[in-house]
Amino acid sequence: MTYCLALRLDEGLVFLADTRTNAGVDNVSTYRKMHVFRPAPDRLFVLESAGSLAGTQQVLDRIEQDLASPSGIETLATVTQLFEAALYIGRISREVADQHRIALSAVGADGSSTFILGGQIQGGRPDTLLIYPEGNYIRASDERPFLQIGETKYGKFLLELAVAAPIDLETAGKIALSSMISTAHANLSVGPPYDLAIYRNDSYEIQEHRIPIGSEYLARLEEVWGIHLLGAIGELPHVQDRDLDP
Amino acid sequence: MTYCLALRLDEGLVFLADTRTNAGVDNVSTYRKMHVFRPAPDRLFVLESAGSLAGTQQVLDRIEQDLASPSGIETLATVTQLFEAALYIGRISREVADQHRIALSAVGADGSSTFILGGQIQGGRPDTLLIYPEGNYIRASDERPFLQIGETKYGKFLLELAVAAPIDLETAGKIALSSMISTAHANLSVGPPYDLAIYRNDSYEIQEHRIPIGSEYLARLEEVWGIHLLGAIGELPHVQDRDLDP
Repeated sequence: MTYCLALRLDEGLVFLADTRTNAGVDNVSTYRKMHVFRPAPDRLFVLESAGSLAGTQQVLDRIEQDLASPSGIETLATVTQLFEAALYIGRISREVADQHRIALSAVGADGSSTFILGGQIQGGRPDTLLIYPEGNYIRASDERPFLQIGETKYGKFLLELAVAAPIDLETAGKIALSSMISTAHANLSVGPPYDLAIYRNDSYEIQEHRIPIGSEYLARLEEVWGIHLLGAIGELPHVQDRDLDP
Repeated sequence: MTYCLALRLDEGLVFLADTRTNAGVDNVSTYRKMHVFRPAPDRLFVLESAGSLAGTQQVLDRIEQDLASPSGIETLATVTQLFEAALYIGRISREVADQHRIALSAVGADGSSTFILGGQIQGGRPDTLLIYPEGNYIRASDERPFLQIGETKYGKFLLELAVAAPIDLETAGKIALSSMISTAHANLSVGPPYDLAIYRNDSYEIQEHRIPIGSEYLARLEEVWGIHLLGAIGELPHVQDRDLDP
């Protein structure tokens, strides 16, 4: 499985993805699920993927192929709005899934993929969009400025509790990492290395960090998170009958 | 939906259940999902339920009917081991589901139920068992001394992180409540009032607490939990390139 998320804040965007892939419980491996495209100086895209690994790789290859092909076709370099980029990727994703549907469904497999697309095209605001396997999309909202794909449940309450548009990008990165390590703790199919990317509005440049397995930073992150979470539990009020009256 | 959990600790057992029920997004209501049976002085059972509300009510009615009927049949008063009680409830649960399967599947509904059974029968150790819709069961293990049914994902990482057999019952109750409010925060189908029950080994008595909507205790619980969780996020180490080397 997979866990990817994106936050849309007043200062910019935060992306975080795990890298664990598996076929059932077998063939556990590490693949990058976060990809950055900068096909022209006036635009930057971050694409996160969940679902069929084969499907997402073919979608990425098709995007690159379109960018390299002679002009006249729609590509990430020609779209003028982020929602057009989402529809473009959604169309390719559907085409790839359709191409393999009969063969895959014959063995009970699902070749579809879900994406989060974020970034900015000059003239528009930075944004994040979730692209469904059917090719349609939704945005993050101002009230709920995050999107998730893959194993979304384990780390959701942290985003609900902590993510608000006005927080700074550094804090937002920490919230994203808290959500990720909570998920990895509860679900074997999500794991490090983690890819973190931070986009500051109107910069058209991305700060990328890979947090590797066995790094001092990851160990410290998990340790501090564990200690403070246990501390939070300890601070909860005692359950006593006299407190429970409505 | 539902969220119920049970912890099996050195000192005793902790049970926690929400009370929200719904049919789709409609007909949201409040029903008790935790039930205590004490059919003889040498035994005490706590039963938590998830799944079809109609199904679980009929199972409870069948259990009571068997207890009230003349002797000669298996009941919660006649079983001599907790696993026999689990198999007994599993059999009734399957019979109830079978009785309604054709009518329910005709409208695309599922009438099956999942239970957590906990308690003690004199001569045996206190234990908790998860009863599947198929009628078989698993116990909590010493390494993973908790069971969950219903919306289990949202609050799982907290149990993974914090529950260990040697902790005291008071702390265990707080961990259970943390897991519950994290779930209710992320999922509308889980909500208060919450029923908390604590069983001390060899007592054959249960301490029950209902934590109502709008109670001062619940407000304080959610406030303290939120503050300390945000504090934990703030304490996480900064993401800096130099920290990220493996």
